[in-house]
Amino acid sequence: MTRDHPLALDAADALAPLRQQFSIPEGLIYLDGNSLGVLPTATAARVQQVVADEWGQGLIGSWNAAGWMALPQRIGDKIAPLVGVGPGELVVADSTSVNLFKVLSAALSLQREAAPQRTIIVSERSNFPTDLYIAESLGRQHGCTLRLVDRADDIPAALGSDTAVLMLTQVNYRSGHLHDMKALSAAAHAAGALAVWDLAHSAGALPVALAADGADYAVGCGYKYLNGGPGAPAFAWVRPAHAERAWQPLAGWHGHATPFAFEPGYQPAPGINRYLCGTPPVLAMAALECGVDTLLAAQPLGGMAALRAKSLALTRLFIDLVHSRCAGQGLTFASPDDDARRGSQVCLAFDPDSAPGRAGAAYAVVQALIARRVVGDFRAGDARDGLPDILRFGVTPLYTRFVDVWDAVEQLRQVLASSEWREPRFNQRGLVT
Amino acid sequence: MTRDHPLALDAADALAPLRQQFSIPEGLIYLDGNSLGVLPTATAARVQQVVADEWGQGLIGSWNAAGWMALPQRIGDKIAPLVGVGPGELVVADSTSVNLFKVLSAALSLQREAAPQRTIIVSERSNFPTDLYIAESLGRQHGCTLRLVDRADDIPAALGSDTAVLMLTQVNYRSGHLHDMKALSAAAHAAGALAVWDLAHSAGALPVALAADGADYAVGCGYKYLNGGPGAPAFAWVRPAHAERAWQPLAGWHGHATPFAFEPGYQPAPGINRYLCGTPPVLAMAALECGVDTLLAAQPLGGMAALRAKSLALTRLFIDLVHSRCAGQGLTFASPDDDARRGSQVCLAFDPDSAPGRAGAAYAVVQALIARRVVGDFRAGDARDGLPDILRFGVTPLYTRFVDVWDAVEQLRQVLASSEWREPRFNQRGLVT
Repeated sequence: MTRDHPLALDAADALAPLRQQFSIPEGLIYLDGNSLGVLPTATAARVQQVVADEWGQGLIGSWNAAGWMALPQRIGDKIAPLVGVGPGELVVADSTSVNLFKVLSAALSLQREAAPQRTIIVSERSNFPTDLYIAESLGRQHGCTLRLVDRADDIPAALGSDTAVLMLTQVNYRSGHLHDMKALSAAAHAAGALAVWDLAHSAGALPVALAADGADYAVGCGYKYLNGGPGAPAFAWVRPAHAERAWQPLAGWHGHATPFAFEPGYQPAPGINRYLCGTPPVLAMAALECGVDTLLAAQPLGGMAALRAKSLALTRLFIDLVHSRCAGQGLTFASPDDDARRGSQVCLAFDPDSAPGRAGAAYAVVQALIARRVVGDFRAGDARDGLPDILRFGVTPLYTRFVDVWDAVEQLRQVLASSEWREPRFNQRGLVT
Repeated sequence: MTRDHPLALDAADALAPLRQQFSIPEGLIYLDGNSLGVLPTATAARVQQVVADEWGQGLIGSWNAAGWMALPQRIGDKIAPLVGVGPGELVVADSTSVNLFKVLSAALSLQREAAPQRTIIVSERSNFPTDLYIAESLGRQHGCTLRLVDRADDIPAALGSDTAVLMLTQVNYRSGHLHDMKALSAAAHAAGALAVWDLAHSAGALPVALAADGADYAVGCGYKYLNGGPGAPAFAWVRPAHAERAWQPLAGWHGHATPFAFEPGYQPAPGINRYLCGTPPVLAMAALECGVDTLLAAQPLGGMAALRAKSLALTRLFIDLVHSRCAGQGLTFASPDDDARRGSQVCLAFDPDSAPGRAGAAYAVVQALIARRVVGDFRAGDARDGLPDILRFGVTPLYTRFVDVWDAVEQLRQVLASSEWREPRFNQRGLVT
């Protein structure tokens, strides 16, 4: 196989034109869209319009005239088809952490009232830490504790008559393992538990079917595969049958039934709108909407199903190239080989024969790649539970090309064959000085 | 007095050049900075730089290279001198509602543990509703209830051995009444209660002295007098002696002691940093920083004390002009006449002799003024507690001119003398069609 192979794949790729929606730095191979998505070309002008015209000229009149009040629902309705739910079921607000607090709190309230003996929140030890922290905090309040499993296969056995909630991130941020939402939601329900899903690494990366797959609550992130910009607002969804069964505790005025009646007593809004809290962040929401629009532009080309097929082809090519071109260099795969269980990233552990277990080796490789304009990222392992340090490479099918994968693995091969990762010195930008 | 009088005041005003920091629509008299501050001229270019350069080109490297990680503290340190606290004591994050949830929860946790008999949260019935809703929600969790007083004078008598927290907005959003923070915090402490202050209508409007005046916790809004843009991030402050005495429940990863160690267990960060939760909203924070800088530009000219003196001169002129030019038109003052108790706004109730108690009269006057390019706002009363509908006019000493006050009252006089407010028809922008 030569570089002509990925070039031919790109030439034949019906989704390739979608890359033109983005401003990507010249010569940069960006495989970190699972941390921060790239800038859509439309965003700069749209944000400028909101700042200069809607805010600068329209001032408070823009809450109605420019539709600011409806942003949480309007953008929510655009995200809804990406995650398999209907219009009016999902709102954009706050951060992923804050939204998880809302939905997990509601789920625990329901469960603790109906079945006080259910005191366990089941999750993965390697779940994204903020999810575990929020669950730990709510556990203190609700008299619940976390039961953390080390392997995805152990999740069903961890569910039982003591379980209130199963809380998982659909694609594990470290390993890229894609959970079977349908099977695990069913297992949770069979045990009498509710299923709370974090879509941080799946919304916009692959087809998500919250309604069909039996999720009860979900949250997701705006700044990864939705390309909403650094710290973009997040979203929350609640199965409509549950939405009015509980209050969520962040009972701010935008979740009130009649926020502009300025009543002293709280009355939650109907449906999902009670999951709003404070005043929506208009500038950030405008940027997020541009990001979501880049995904909706894929709908005529096959939508999330087509993007998923391309994502799997990209990660499969990455895996094949590492096998064929980086053999014997100390790399092992930390992400699933099974297409059905792999998210949109490839993760590698690095334990070179020449320096077994050398602390910082994986970090140094990532930094050396960044110096060569290939951006992946490093996620630290944890000796206490046997997780290795990993190199993480995310592909974003909206803008990652097959030739990017080829070039990235070639740079990885060169770095591993060099001494660059052995004694690196880095400046603040992660570049070798 | 003629229009030459306010023009002379503007000509003699040492703070007048500060208005040049803003992009204010030509010919608009904007007296609603207490709802949404106007656009600083620097904001558009700064936001564009963040979007195009820091995000578009720097991508994830900007978390360190562009200082994104430090935004909550960097902007917090700029707000700190405006509210009378030291560097490192205040962080920018989330919305006012979410931050109030954090600090009120911490205050209630401390109080309920030390003195379980303290089950009362004292506040004003006319406090901004989101504050009451958050308190009601946390009250359900902590076994506390709200005791709401109808008159500011009744607050001290409402505090007692059953009181956990006194929670007030320093300047009441409807009446513009400025509470005596020092006296009321002392009264709370004398009763064994903690004092939680919302600075939504005071931070950036007048000198606030949280440390000297005995506040225990405070939150504030970024999009009113701080000119941070629609839905700008808010801030939270905790008296340093309390900061590490409690967890706050929104235990997200940015409030963790070592967020990038990705540990499964939560360990709160030292000091105020544990009041952070999710990933900071970078675009919105950049805009907020530009807004805060417009206040810091006043420091060489006397800072908040000079701005307060101008604010009082502006509202006094407004009051005097209404007395002298709108007499007998059915207006009464709903904001304090006493300079020491008046925030940065003038509020009027409208009950015309020709149509006593006519529903919607005050609203119609506000809309007729907007049609004449004078923007104040309307806040609905509540027949149940005797609050009248009000016309609310905020002055923002950074950019409101004395001649604006003159012209606004002249337009008000003309509207009242006309039939414009009697049968208005309005379009979505609040303009007469």
